[in-house]
Amino acid sequence: MTQELSQQIDFILELDKLKAVYRKALIKADNNRYENSAEHSWHISLTAHVLAPYADETVDISRVTLMLLIHDIVEIDAGDTFAFDHHTILGQQADKEIAAAERIFGLLPASQRQKIIALWHEFEQAETPDAQFAKAMDRILPLIQNMQNEGGSWAQNKVYKHQVINRNQYLETSAPKLWDYVLTQIDIATDKGWLQIE
Amino acid sequence: MTQELSQQIDFILELDKLKAVYRKALIKADNNRYENSAEHSWHISLTAHVLAPYADETVDISRVTLMLLIHDIVEIDAGDTFAFDHHTILGQQADKEIAAAERIFGLLPASQRQKIIALWHEFEQAETPDAQFAKAMDRILPLIQNMQNEGGSWAQNKVYKHQVINRNQYLETSAPKLWDYVLTQIDIATDKGWLQIE
Repeated sequence: MTQELSQQIDFILELDKLKAVYRKALIKADNNRYENSAEHSWHISLTAHVLAPYADETVDISRVTLMLLIHDIVEIDAGDTFAFDHHTILGQQADKEIAAAERIFGLLPASQRQKIIALWHEFEQAETPDAQFAKAMDRILPLIQNMQNEGGSWAQNKVYKHQVINRNQYLETSAPKLWDYVLTQIDIATDKGWLQIE
Repeated sequence: MTQELSQQIDFILELDKLKAVYRKALIKADNNRYENSAEHSWHISLTAHVLAPYADETVDISRVTLMLLIHDIVEIDAGDTFAFDHHTILGQQADKEIAAAERIFGLLPASQRQKIIALWHEFEQAETPDAQFAKAMDRILPLIQNMQNEGGSWAQNKVYKHQVINRNQYLETSAPKLWDYVLTQIDIATDKGWLQIE
């Protein structure tokens, strides 16, 4: 076995650990157990394919897909934080995630490492159309899931309406046709008491 | 909300159910619980990216990725069968999966439905280089997982060496540089008693 293949297999095995990172999202179809970040990554990758026609700028769906497949891998070391945690916690998390990206993507051979690290940073920085659409997909899916589950993780964690509006803002520019849908759903959730108002 | 968006959201919600379809594979990193087909689909999609340099013919990695993201969705209706079940069971399964593909991919708007159904059939028929490489990835990953887990699902289900060789045969033509690695691993597994011999 070449050194390159040995490194690739180590990376593939490392990925198994993302299946043990649990999020606040609930899986209605599986007795409302917590969702893990591996299955979430699968779900948003496919969500991006299905909703790609709504992207405002021309996005490269294969780059978006790869971004979404890798976007949470850093949680193997850094853990998942809830999207609506205090910003101090979220700031500390960013440092941990950068170190995690270096270690985990660093398992790959040199020929593959830099491309993946760069793609992960592009997603995090959310400045390119591909990254903004990927972020938008990462935001809309929990909304779709919570709307089918009596508020799901919003209701369980007493999340405010304005927090969900802020978090979904990427959609306003990167997929404006979905933005109206999202605002309507947020209003319904608020009426039902699944989202808090001040 | 347009009818098209409504259909797309129904499809995205339907996907949640794949997280409740459990396979025989074990997740070492999560107390050896059973793996579900959603997280498995994520793992092989990334495995395909990492091992793409070994593909013998030029494969289109974005088509392979989409194939792998959708390949198990039919299990929402048809359930998972163990790769080494009796061929009568596997034959009945094929019919159930075709009906499942029609129903589940049929939730999508007409503009997206046919492309996805065609891609799923292409994967199943395993005749094109893209489909053969995708199948090869679906075969090699359980081997990588079982080798790190004292035989994992092989040992637990008393699988024979010749069954694993047959199942991995796609690699011989679609990724020959990985074939030697696979044969070596199968020999090690047999020596350790993780695979049965006649």
